[in-house]
Amino acid sequence: MVSEDGFGTGEGQSLERPFGHADPRELAAWAGATASWPNRTDPGGTRGLDDYFTRDFSHNIGAEIMGRNKFGPQRGPWQDHEWRGWWGDEPPFHTPVFVMTHHERPSFTLSDTTFHFVAGDPATVLERAKEAAQGKDVRLGGGPTIVREFLEAGLVDTLHVAVSPLKLGSGVRLWNSPEDLVDRYHLEVVPSPSGVTHHLFWRR
Amino acid sequence: MVSEDGFGTGEGQSLERPFGHADPRELAAWAGATASWPNRTDPGGTRGLDDYFTRDFSHNIGAEIMGRNKFGPQRGPWQDHEWRGWWGDEPPFHTPVFVMTHHERPSFTLSDTTFHFVAGDPATVLERAKEAAQGKDVRLGGGPTIVREFLEAGLVDTLHVAVSPLKLGSGVRLWNSPEDLVDRYHLEVVPSPSGVTHHLFWRR
Repeated sequence: MVSEDGFGTGEGQSLERPFGHADPRELAAWAGATASWPNRTDPGGTRGLDDYFTRDFSHNIGAEIMGRNKFGPQRGPWQDHEWRGWWGDEPPFHTPVFVMTHHERPSFTLSDTTFHFVAGDPATVLERAKEAAQGKDVRLGGGPTIVREFLEAGLVDTLHVAVSPLKLGSGVRLWNSPEDLVDRYHLEVVPSPSGVTHHLFWRR
Repeated sequence: MVSEDGFGTGEGQSLERPFGHADPRELAAWAGATASWPNRTDPGGTRGLDDYFTRDFSHNIGAEIMGRNKFGPQRGPWQDHEWRGWWGDEPPFHTPVFVMTHHERPSFTLSDTTFHFVAGDPATVLERAKEAAQGKDVRLGGGPTIVREFLEAGLVDTLHVAVSPLKLGSGVRLWNSPEDLVDRYHLEVVPSPSGVTHHLFWRR
């Protein structure tokens, strides 16, 4: 998910503001409205186009890779091991999760999600995740920095980016424009009735 | 899948022409081009919008219901039990399939798909399929006649219809127009870059 001006998250991430000055409820409003949104606690929700994308979130996924800043607001060596992510006791991943970080720490398990902390370049981390995925696909879950790194390393087969109709002005950038990728990827741009525009990339 | 003028299949179904005068390769061209098309034998295929729909074909599905005319070209009492569907030894369903027919015959299994033949009204057939689906969803696989019957009986929660940019002139009709359903269903109309237009309905 990025803003119209290309930012995947805002400026100034903190414990209170996981997306910095950006409001994740605004960026993710299109997903939160759907029936298949993993964090939904009440019944109902839309079953239109956007729901196909939230429903696909777990389809044939055997592992997730995320960046350290998606996992939490701490930087540098781990001060303590109390922090176990933003997601409470029931994280929505339900597979092994590989957190790419220079600072290793012991793996731990919450419900059916195990978090591993892996140093190394994108190819090394992908190797570990693929092994764990046992033939299923590996989801690259963000944030924007790690997606950029994996794109630069040529390790991304398909990419779904939902562009929300709001501007952030600053933050962590995914791209200047979707056009940055069209030399290497096919691109379909699909506007949704909800106002978000889905960008679907796959390798040329 | 229906034609622009609302026909789900052509006129004059036969062993040689499962869709009558309609060409299924034309009606299904959008799906056949995708990476996740169940009948694909070569690698490759597109990973854009249409692929989300073919990928969703099996998502959380525990059983399929189909009409007798989707199963085969015979009418009336079964002449023989040699006919086992159009799909060869590896049908793409991978779940129990319930064929709604006035003329029962013994169940049989091909690979991981078991076909059952069930007489009764739509609610009765759905009851049987739900039992077999063990908490997963039941797919109503068509053809157009059985979809109309289940819609009239109020048994359809969501409906995906891909409208292809071709006219058939005659055949078996799904609807006069998508507008037929908007008193009872939300509707999103999503044009795909491939030329097909996805119609997504869910209950009001």
